[in-house]
Amino acid sequence: MKIAIAGAGAMGSRIGLMLHQSGNEVLLIDRWPAHIEAIRTNGLIADFNGKEVVAKLPIYSPEEIIESNEHVDLIVALTKANQLDDMFRSIQSIITDNTYVLCLLNGLGHEDVLEKYVPKKNIIFGITMWTAGLAGPGKVTLLGDGEIELENLEPEGEAFTKKVVEVFQEAKLNPIYSHNVRYSIWRKACVNGTLNGLCTILDCNIAELGAQKATESMVRTIVSEFASIAAKEGIILDQEEVYQHIASTYDPDNIGLHYPSMYQDLIKNHRLTEIDYINGAVWRKGQKYDIATPYCAFLTQLVHAKEGILGAE
Amino acid sequence: MKIAIAGAGAMGSRIGLMLHQSGNEVLLIDRWPAHIEAIRTNGLIADFNGKEVVAKLPIYSPEEIIESNEHVDLIVALTKANQLDDMFRSIQSIITDNTYVLCLLNGLGHEDVLEKYVPKKNIIFGITMWTAGLAGPGKVTLLGDGEIELENLEPEGEAFTKKVVEVFQEAKLNPIYSHNVRYSIWRKACVNGTLNGLCTILDCNIAELGAQKATESMVRTIVSEFASIAAKEGIILDQEEVYQHIASTYDPDNIGLHYPSMYQDLIKNHRLTEIDYINGAVWRKGQKYDIATPYCAFLTQLVHAKEGILGAE
Repeated sequence: MKIAIAGAGAMGSRIGLMLHQSGNEVLLIDRWPAHIEAIRTNGLIADFNGKEVVAKLPIYSPEEIIESNEHVDLIVALTKANQLDDMFRSIQSIITDNTYVLCLLNGLGHEDVLEKYVPKKNIIFGITMWTAGLAGPGKVTLLGDGEIELENLEPEGEAFTKKVVEVFQEAKLNPIYSHNVRYSIWRKACVNGTLNGLCTILDCNIAELGAQKATESMVRTIVSEFASIAAKEGIILDQEEVYQHIASTYDPDNIGLHYPSMYQDLIKNHRLTEIDYINGAVWRKGQKYDIATPYCAFLTQLVHAKEGILGAE
Repeated sequence: MKIAIAGAGAMGSRIGLMLHQSGNEVLLIDRWPAHIEAIRTNGLIADFNGKEVVAKLPIYSPEEIIESNEHVDLIVALTKANQLDDMFRSIQSIITDNTYVLCLLNGLGHEDVLEKYVPKKNIIFGITMWTAGLAGPGKVTLLGDGEIELENLEPEGEAFTKKVVEVFQEAKLNPIYSHNVRYSIWRKACVNGTLNGLCTILDCNIAELGAQKATESMVRTIVSEFASIAAKEGIILDQEEVYQHIASTYDPDNIGLHYPSMYQDLIKNHRLTEIDYINGAVWRKGQKYDIATPYCAFLTQLVHAKEGILGAE
């Protein structure tokens, strides 16, 4: 299969590399000049579970991919949430009626962006439990195991999506054809919508958050807001299961000692967060559906205020 | 007038000292052993606008005041909010039908505590714009100017309250007999209910808070929650005036460069905060009146979580 990775950061590099290793024709699309330069000069260099792997993958800027006139069967979207729209607007002319897009971004509301550029029948959504770290331009650290759950948004997409599952299976990406990927996306968004914002604002790790008496009520309230919006979109979240799933992460033997990605982005690296695609998306959808989501609203405002105070860019 | 100061911290010491200087019989009641010891040994030592003043004021623990069988005309309540109930339960037996209590604590809900121990007709409420700092046991720093606005809760208390105004006038405490002290208390609580919690959770000073785009909406929402509860208690807050009053504090030439007292308590000194008597009180009253106050609830929970994370005591 001919596959483009739109957004070749850590996770995009992992998926691109593993698909390349199993014999697919993979090309990367990214906007980071130093990353493009490094991969062109040295190839993509990965610490792949302790073994160095070098892959000579072609990499393009969005403008270059347009000029190249390349066409692919599948585009895997793995940009930052706030770069998705710009990426797909830029590469729009390589998308034909036969091009499928698999969206693996965290968060909510990405279908609204993709539907502007891709026929809905060609959109596949997924979530991944793989991890990946960026060690520098052209260098990634790929440790551990994971899986990818994916499903076509429309019934017409099923045949191609099942082909993608086969291709991912050969690449050992552990794909699962889901019968309710939108449920899984909302469930994962609840995890990110509680741990990310709360640990960021309280300046603590997941175990410290979990140890506070006030946390259960805050988490349950946020989950209930997510659930009320999900219900409007036809997804009935099992709030108790989602709450228990979140509470299980507090354990230091689980991921309790970790600081969530938003904490690392904002508090550690003074980078803008993806709050607008998590709690902010629920707040926006709530305004659209006339449903109050005050905890999501307030948490979004607090994180934006903190971005301003820290001069995040 | 014979006056007891119940809670002889920085502000209690200021008011006690100034009333003593103008010839009243003042006694202090406090629970801090080192403070009691220092005042008994050296007197209360004040840096009073740059001049050292030493006042030999009697000071008692609540248990000692009971044993002493002292009775006073007026008790000025200036404990920490969470110590008010304990203080008045402890000194209950010195309160007669002729004892008036002037409550000068910040925050909301103190009448519910005082009415357990004091006839409502004997309760006077006030707010003060004086400042005071504690430099150590027995030592206070009293700089600048201020005023005190006060009013009896019930019409029967007016005559005595006007006597208190005279006594405070002689002590140069700049009293104002208010015709709506409860309005002023709610208005001041809005200032504390926004600046205190938000600067504490965002780890910033007042000017930095004011400079963030998200702040106006957060402040207006919190003020609207205070207003909805105040309205249930017969106080119609002018929300626009209150908002503009809060926004005026952001100016570095006003108090913009200050960190609010809650920030100093929690972030700097790892002490428990008075959030339960500000936003927490609005949240509690909201539950009683069946009015949603989610921003006050969430802010209270966040501050309590932060107290736990920092090991505040």
